[in-house]
Amino acid sequence: MPHLLIIGGSDAGISAALRAREVDASWQVTMVVADAYPNFSICGLPYFLSGEVADWHHLAHRTRADIEAVGIHLLLDHTATHIDPGAKTVTVQDRQGGTQAIAYDRLVIGTGATPHRPAIAGLDQEGVYLLHTMDDSFAVKRHLEEHPPQSAIIVGAGYIGLEMAEALASKGIATTLLQRGAQIHPSVDAVFGDRIAAELGRHGVQIVTGATATQIVPHDGQLHVVGQADQRWAAELVLVATGVQPATALARAAGVPLGADGALRVTRTMATTLPDVFAAGDCVETHHRLLAEPTYLPLGTTAHKQGRVAGENAVGGHRLFAGSVGTQAVKVCDVVVARTGLLEHEARAAGYDPLSVDLTTWDHKVYYPGARELVLRLTGDRMSGRVLGAQILGAWGSEVAKRIDIIATALYQDLRIEQLSDLDLSYTPPLSSPWDPIQMVAQVWCTQQRMR
Amino acid sequence: MPHLLIIGGSDAGISAALRAREVDASWQVTMVVADAYPNFSICGLPYFLSGEVADWHHLAHRTRADIEAVGIHLLLDHTATHIDPGAKTVTVQDRQGGTQAIAYDRLVIGTGATPHRPAIAGLDQEGVYLLHTMDDSFAVKRHLEEHPPQSAIIVGAGYIGLEMAEALASKGIATTLLQRGAQIHPSVDAVFGDRIAAELGRHGVQIVTGATATQIVPHDGQLHVVGQADQRWAAELVLVATGVQPATALARAAGVPLGADGALRVTRTMATTLPDVFAAGDCVETHHRLLAEPTYLPLGTTAHKQGRVAGENAVGGHRLFAGSVGTQAVKVCDVVVARTGLLEHEARAAGYDPLSVDLTTWDHKVYYPGARELVLRLTGDRMSGRVLGAQILGAWGSEVAKRIDIIATALYQDLRIEQLSDLDLSYTPPLSSPWDPIQMVAQVWCTQQRMR
Repeated sequence: MPHLLIIGGSDAGISAALRAREVDASWQVTMVVADAYPNFSICGLPYFLSGEVADWHHLAHRTRADIEAVGIHLLLDHTATHIDPGAKTVTVQDRQGGTQAIAYDRLVIGTGATPHRPAIAGLDQEGVYLLHTMDDSFAVKRHLEEHPPQSAIIVGAGYIGLEMAEALASKGIATTLLQRGAQIHPSVDAVFGDRIAAELGRHGVQIVTGATATQIVPHDGQLHVVGQADQRWAAELVLVATGVQPATALARAAGVPLGADGALRVTRTMATTLPDVFAAGDCVETHHRLLAEPTYLPLGTTAHKQGRVAGENAVGGHRLFAGSVGTQAVKVCDVVVARTGLLEHEARAAGYDPLSVDLTTWDHKVYYPGARELVLRLTGDRMSGRVLGAQILGAWGSEVAKRIDIIATALYQDLRIEQLSDLDLSYTPPLSSPWDPIQMVAQVWCTQQRMR
Repeated sequence: MPHLLIIGGSDAGISAALRAREVDASWQVTMVVADAYPNFSICGLPYFLSGEVADWHHLAHRTRADIEAVGIHLLLDHTATHIDPGAKTVTVQDRQGGTQAIAYDRLVIGTGATPHRPAIAGLDQEGVYLLHTMDDSFAVKRHLEEHPPQSAIIVGAGYIGLEMAEALASKGIATTLLQRGAQIHPSVDAVFGDRIAAELGRHGVQIVTGATATQIVPHDGQLHVVGQADQRWAAELVLVATGVQPATALARAAGVPLGADGALRVTRTMATTLPDVFAAGDCVETHHRLLAEPTYLPLGTTAHKQGRVAGENAVGGHRLFAGSVGTQAVKVCDVVVARTGLLEHEARAAGYDPLSVDLTTWDHKVYYPGARELVLRLTGDRMSGRVLGAQILGAWGSEVAKRIDIIATALYQDLRIEQLSDLDLSYTPPLSSPWDPIQMVAQVWCTQQRMR
């Protein structure tokens, strides 16, 4: 019985395992998981900490029993410490320090990412947390319960920072969000980031941009975050969420070269340079359909897709990872913002000649009760007329996310903006207009392109 | 100055006029409108009658002033009575019976559709209404206000019938919905129609299927609808909504041949067989991308698209109508159901070898509060693996409509079902899952196809 070994039990690993079993059940599949929580939704941690998810068990996409029921062998609380690509073995270590070598016919590396540790002195003290694993979350949860803070500081205003700001503010904690750059949520353009800032502000979050923290010092029973210009922000709890970096040490030691942004280099079959070794998820570079080159985009959606391809190919398949188009969405309080494709500055850097147009309109016919504003920005290539990207912001419940997905689907196939008006999209007055807002903004784009 | 004359002031006519002015402002554009309500949202009438839209003026997509501001000349309350394609004139009649002939260089016919008059005796009596024009709606509204009924019967359970049932029930009127066929809302499969029936039932609507009305007779101050098997249903108000038929008399008299389902035959440039005469909207046949042949699909979305193409080509453009893929959505009380593409029986009739699979799952990660069930059915071609159609039902607010639009966008480009898993769709726990439900059902489809 051939043996597929998978290192990592999160999105990429589980997808690889499930797909391998589905495609060819003659393979034995073993998944080595560093903790006791295979297939947990890391994206759900902010909602566990906010209390919206009462029981952490609910964060499991699948239970251990579900996974084992499809014939996947789980090795929990084991850390892979060494890959020998010549002997085709992986050494794993249990929590007591005992080691064993496991032979594989094919290997999938899904070691994920680790939180970026910014250059801030004092990260390792009581009351300061980097959020990544289930155990990190339990520690924060314990802290919130045992020493309920009046105030908190979050360093970093990406997805996790935004969601944690909402979570803490919703618990009545005076929350300050510190962002190094000039805008929060830099994955979208400033006009959208500013609206998210305003939404958090309405929910009591204090936002400070241009704030580069250099150290965290205890003072009078509080933690003082000290900024570069000697500013100080004080709170009882500090969460640091300044992004992640690919966890590559294990694969690098085995000889896998690095690619984009220090992630493992892989082909579109998710193969590494080592024979019979695949890799997927937050530890690898990601093929971007619009850039036509690898980038680093650690997202659960991408990890699932890459893992599925890796798992299928590991057991003999011939699948290509189709690539990302950069789709992302986040809900912040009562607002959703989503993007797909390239921002204008990204498009320009990639050699396109981008034109962006804006439109503010209603999510459905304004005569029907409850219409809410949608803010749309559409970017296309002046020369080819091709869709390059879009950003949409609107109220939660106004189908922002699936509207961006229509554009993502168009991007998948290199549609021209003009063709968006051809799409036969649904309409009923409580849900849209005869031209969906994404078609309205496409028509504005075409008019502006013609006028130049 | 060349003259574009447009007959009809609803979706197709206004889209043609706007597009013509946008593309080439050197054309004079005149729109002949049979009533005083150009560019009104016919789809909004049920919400006017329910009271959700308090003021009928709000149903205007654009005001008269908006339309005239872009240089469109409006001839309201004028009915076109004769087209002379040789002389290139249209005779129009005002409400006083006065006539004039208007010369055109190009003509767009957008005469729309008229309500189907079923073979029921007694349609023309007090208290019985066919709903189509603004004036019809005013009459019903007046009736509701002056003789508030305790009970109503709606004959026909298509879109308008469903929306009117909701509207009347919401006003506390005991409402009975009579449907000739075995299921209500026959645009979707029975499993979806039955759920809509259950939803209306929860809101107090009594539904009778297999009910063929033959006559309506007054009796004891009520109207009795008599069925084929001598059943009787009594109420104070009867609305008849059994579909529409293309309004073709004017064009037929001028020599335009009929095509699919008795609608005007047009090319994909929206040209008729007459020189310099175009037609668009509910009066014409519609190119269907999956059937690759004309069909009759009178929808506002399609009318807008066809009108836009007709208007552009009338002033010298060379645009093709891309065609419909059969996308439709309706909200009934708290439920939305949407479809795109072909139902399985339609696909089979069109020569495909369809396989349909069902999935019931959650609209977003179930651990996040407020997750609601989505019911999905995906139909694909066994031989080619191509997407043929989908139906989705779920709670209002769970992004049902824009999820169907992702499939509609895939259909536009003949995607294979396998490729749905490649789409880079957005994910955040309050809004979806790492695999969107449409990807989950696609994966079920692929598994079932392989197992055969």
